Amino acid sequence: MIKKLISEIQKKNAPIVVGLDPTLAMIPENLLPEVALEGEEYLDEVGDAIFKFNTAIVDATCDLIPAVKPQIAMYEQFGIPGLIAFKKTVDYCHEKGLVVIGDVKRGDIGSTSAAYATAHLGTIVAGGVAPFDEDFATVNPYLGTDGIKPFVDVCKSNDKGIFVLVKTSNPSSGEFQDQILESTGKPLYEYVGEMVEKWGEDSMEGDYSNVGAVVGATYPEMGERLRKIMPRAYILVPGYGAQGGTGADLKPFFNKDGLGAIVNSSRGIIAAYKNEKYADRFSAENFADASRAAVEDMLKDIRENAL
Amino acid sequence: MIKKLISEIQKKNAPIVVGLDPTLAMIPENLLPEVALEGEEYLDEVGDAIFKFNTAIVDATCDLIPAVKPQIAMYEQFGIPGLIAFKKTVDYCHEKGLVVIGDVKRGDIGSTSAAYATAHLGTIVAGGVAPFDEDFATVNPYLGTDGIKPFVDVCKSNDKGIFVLVKTSNPSSGEFQDQILESTGKPLYEYVGEMVEKWGEDSMEGDYSNVGAVVGATYPEMGERLRKIMPRAYILVPGYGAQGGTGADLKPFFNKDGLGAIVNSSRGIIAAYKNEKYADRFSAENFADASRAAVEDMLKDIRENAL
Repeated sequence: MIKKLISEIQKKNAPIVVGLDPTLAMIPENLLPEVALEGEEYLDEVGDAIFKFNTAIVDATCDLIPAVKPQIAMYEQFGIPGLIAFKKTVDYCHEKGLVVIGDVKRGDIGSTSAAYATAHLGTIVAGGVAPFDEDFATVNPYLGTDGIKPFVDVCKSNDKGIFVLVKTSNPSSGEFQDQILESTGKPLYEYVGEMVEKWGEDSMEGDYSNVGAVVGATYPEMGERLRKIMPRAYILVPGYGAQGGTGADLKPFFNKDGLGAIVNSSRGIIAAYKNEKYADRFSAENFADASRAAVEDMLKDIRENAL
Repeated sequence: MIKKLISEIQKKNAPIVVGLDPTLAMIPENLLPEVALEGEEYLDEVGDAIFKFNTAIVDATCDLIPAVKPQIAMYEQFGIPGLIAFKKTVDYCHEKGLVVIGDVKRGDIGSTSAAYATAHLGTIVAGGVAPFDEDFATVNPYLGTDGIKPFVDVCKSNDKGIFVLVKTSNPSSGEFQDQILESTGKPLYEYVGEMVEKWGEDSMEGDYSNVGAVVGATYPEMGERLRKIMPRAYILVPGYGAQGGTGADLKPFFNKDGLGAIVNSSRGIIAAYKNEKYADRFSAENFADASRAAVEDMLKDIRENAL
């Protein structure tokens, strides 16, 4: 699957991914349900609103981008109707030819990780159906190799991939991830990075592995170290835009050939019409056009400053 | 919510929780769908089978136990129909007066963790509906305080609780969790334990906090250390039974008053009828009675050897 992702990135000269992480505050009022609705009925309408919002943004940007990254928490918070909207979004993006990175951050002990891997990247053999059917999933490494291995196995048999959390973009990511280990004299995230490289050894497609890593744009120096520690791992880089990362911060995440990283922006793209930079040109009704303009600006920034 | 859990544990003299983690291999054939079904139709039938299996076990054991712990991965792997079975199971267990610990191991950066917390422990304000409505959720700490804090906040406003992964029960949990940190000279899991104690400071109900910890029964010496490091944290202990932990291994997890820990068994209870210990007394048709017998044996072991 990493081969397909790279080919789409090259075709569109766009090492970026749009994070489909809608909140109710981002969705224009005319798409939202009336607050008078209650219970499951309200959630059904919210699910429909999210799906409509997503499809408009996908329609307006899919010729420019190789991939989307729906954040499942934003759907799960609306219960079953939210998760139905998640699945419909995955399917719609596939119809539009996009690679789908499920930002699910799952991870558990062996047999349970296997169930999560099946849910997001696998197929239920007896029924012949792929439950959520993303192309990549993000995975949490805290439980060690036996939590990761089942994902790697499912990826191999289904041509899918994972991105393992190595150094996350949030302010307190350092509390545990930056701790220096006595055994190596280096921080925990570097050790996790070394393990990502190892976990991906047998999952190569060309120069890169189907086992990639998540490293936040907000930590470019660490990105530079990790790029060297994990030569085979594609790096999914969150934290650009709304979280503070800039195009120049991204340079260390890329290899000289312009490959090796894919940069995510969520709010910066999908809520662009609310940003003062776009608000005078686009109204709430034209939210998807504002998203397209934000994608074009992000691409310009990255092509000029990061590659 | 920890107060309610403790009160139920005391009422039933049962510091145990039954893990509702069904796999298709555990469910008796007469409950399973015909393999000839395909796609969503097959998943719908699987969801129904899981729910029927769970309700029979809950009916047969609910007077003996204070709580259940459905593992969401086992439902998520069957897509939307699986998650519908998860939600129906949560609701059914509430009807039977049980505390529900959602074993979801979620965790993300701030606003995303807030969405997960809403999904599992909170309420959608506008619609007035609790999406999945568990009483406790398990949470992954790898992203640090700003991934945990939103869960703590939602717990406070909804009288709910969390169990943070500290030392997991699986064989490779030590890869990262046991690493000695230069800053403290102690293993990472102890530092996470110290943070759990801190995260729970403002969430006390009586002697214990609504912020608890997960520590595997398979590591009793570490459990003993962690019991002292986190005096306010209730410990959820997986790994008993099928994973190898015994009643005597559990002693260090409890305080002298018999409180402070709640021990989970999943396969050992719900698939008891497949265990040779019970197979001659119970057939597949009487699987729920076998589960009851297994609960009684677990209680005996824990009352005699752990308390």
